[in-house]
Amino acid sequence: MSTEISGPAARIARVREMMAQRGYDAVVVRDEANLRWLTGAMGVFDYTFEFPHVAFISRDRCFLHTDSRYFNSFEENLPAGNPWELDMDQIAMPRWVADRALETKSSVVAVEDDMQISFYFGIQRGLEDVSICASLPQMHGDIQRMRAVKDAEEIELMRHAQSITDAAFAHMCEFIRPGLTEKQIRTELETFMFNNGADSLAFSSIVASGPNTANPHAIPSDRMVEKGDFVLMDCGAGYRDYRSDMTRTVCVGQPSEKQFELYALVRRTHEECAAAIHAGADGHEIHMLSKKIIGDAGYGDYYGHGLGHGVGIDIHELPNLGRTSNVLEEGSVVTVEPGVYLPGVGGVRLEDYGIVTKDGFEPFTKSSHDLVVIDC
Amino acid sequence: MSTEISGPAARIARVREMMAQRGYDAVVVRDEANLRWLTGAMGVFDYTFEFPHVAFISRDRCFLHTDSRYFNSFEENLPAGNPWELDMDQIAMPRWVADRALETKSSVVAVEDDMQISFYFGIQRGLEDVSICASLPQMHGDIQRMRAVKDAEEIELMRHAQSITDAAFAHMCEFIRPGLTEKQIRTELETFMFNNGADSLAFSSIVASGPNTANPHAIPSDRMVEKGDFVLMDCGAGYRDYRSDMTRTVCVGQPSEKQFELYALVRRTHEECAAAIHAGADGHEIHMLSKKIIGDAGYGDYYGHGLGHGVGIDIHELPNLGRTSNVLEEGSVVTVEPGVYLPGVGGVRLEDYGIVTKDGFEPFTKSSHDLVVIDC
Repeated sequence: MSTEISGPAARIARVREMMAQRGYDAVVVRDEANLRWLTGAMGVFDYTFEFPHVAFISRDRCFLHTDSRYFNSFEENLPAGNPWELDMDQIAMPRWVADRALETKSSVVAVEDDMQISFYFGIQRGLEDVSICASLPQMHGDIQRMRAVKDAEEIELMRHAQSITDAAFAHMCEFIRPGLTEKQIRTELETFMFNNGADSLAFSSIVASGPNTANPHAIPSDRMVEKGDFVLMDCGAGYRDYRSDMTRTVCVGQPSEKQFELYALVRRTHEECAAAIHAGADGHEIHMLSKKIIGDAGYGDYYGHGLGHGVGIDIHELPNLGRTSNVLEEGSVVTVEPGVYLPGVGGVRLEDYGIVTKDGFEPFTKSSHDLVVIDC
Repeated sequence: MSTEISGPAARIARVREMMAQRGYDAVVVRDEANLRWLTGAMGVFDYTFEFPHVAFISRDRCFLHTDSRYFNSFEENLPAGNPWELDMDQIAMPRWVADRALETKSSVVAVEDDMQISFYFGIQRGLEDVSICASLPQMHGDIQRMRAVKDAEEIELMRHAQSITDAAFAHMCEFIRPGLTEKQIRTELETFMFNNGADSLAFSSIVASGPNTANPHAIPSDRMVEKGDFVLMDCGAGYRDYRSDMTRTVCVGQPSEKQFELYALVRRTHEECAAAIHAGADGHEIHMLSKKIIGDAGYGDYYGHGLGHGVGIDIHELPNLGRTSNVLEEGSVVTVEPGVYLPGVGGVRLEDYGIVTKDGFEPFTKSSHDLVVIDC
């Protein structure tokens, strides 16, 4: 058994290592996924992106400001022995940050680069109000980068989330039939996940049918599924703040030759790219491989998105398999999701997610890659 | 029949009036609710807060940058005759903004104050790259303030969304019984809304029971409902990008004297405050009235949140009935939602939403304020 510290304590220690390397006296954290990761508080964050919380981590103290709606939930859900000093004073949060800089004598206070400008300039005014100077260097995804490599507990939560999603897909293959609307299919899918252990949705499910499958981020509509349609489902269960992510495209009735060709191309692209993943590979190069395979088949204009992305507390995390260089680390969790989308006709996407290992890629997703044909 | 322009064209005209008053040559918009309001594009925005779009409105042109995942959806869903020039060039979006400033010779380019600092400083670098200067004044909720007063179409969508939510509450009063978990109740509630016309959830529903009702923003747990519990449900349907918002607290079995007293206090607070609303009233003063009523009853320490907020495309919009002064305008849509929360014991919240009229407040919510007692 290891005696190393793990979980939130280890994560705070890593942030403090970075602080020491960069010469930061403190960091300010508002991103809810970063806060979930640093506090370990489960069932508190609702990811509404209204930023109700702010943390201030100095060399030796951890402050957390929230409001009365969440205070009690934090008290009940922060792990035992946690270092957080909770506060719900009714004070403007940027000023609260300035007060903490004063209290801890911090003059280099790093902030996340996705902080809102009103908050950023608010801290500067707060510092003027308390008569101190501090520089506010921007971190560019540094905590997000730490989150990219998952520990054993995080992997276990995501495997579990995906097992719910796999079961939901198996159920939907029995459920889908002509005459159902995309919205009805979405409701059945999400209800199944909730009734089978999901405690949230990883994201609002995409269910598209027929020509709507040509819109990669289609929102479920009242369109009725017809014989001959592709039905594309992109969905995932959430479990204890961790998410799963899977896409399958099924065919309602026997596929046309064109449909079969498209599906086979996307499947081949998926499998060749998944086989190219391993620790140390560059996500960008694997993305470029997917572009090459689809481009060589003549569909280069109909595949505009990235091949994949990290998943964890956020549905889109680091690392990316996309337009920029991103070396994949052992223990990262990523999706592989090529697609081809023909406007007016339809599209196919095939997505698994899993863990980057030393030598390869181990999908959490257990659903088959075979094209599911719905009898009708 | 009026011949005035309405909808998105009228809204863009109002933004341009503000531009003229302030001396802005252009405004940059990233907030998805602002974009929904300005474009009228229905069923495109997924409110993931990853900011995949950016608009640049100059004196005579309207540019919209998105990516390939959304491009086709915009083409299909933008209203006929719309002024938007769509673009999905693979270029960093801050640089795209700088290019538009160059193209339109804009030297005063206003931005939203909730823009991320990476984007803001990215625009500044982009301007340097294209060799021009522009100042970037911050708008402080100006477009949000325009959105606060709703037009007839918006009100119709919200009335409809609330009718779905009312029906869901009536259904839940039949459904709830001891032995169900909070999560099971949440699933039934959300499924009912989807099966009865909701096309999204206004927000992730709050279902809390027993002592959990003391956490105003509780997340549904595996706790089983017991006889003697309060069950608090805070939920709403989404309909064509507009939201509803309602909270009811029911009692499982006959209420204790203490429960009845708490409920009666919250109900009285709600009704006295709702009666005080009218166009021209200050939301802050109505909030202070709620604090006074609850404070006079001895529970001032157990009501920490604001009395209410605007609702529309966003679940939390202007105007606020809270800690700061906000004059209510005719045609605004607001919630009234006082609550009392006793840690370890339980809490009650009672929330309607509706429209501010010249002389009063007309709730969209039709569910009764009487305490619902679940037989068991």
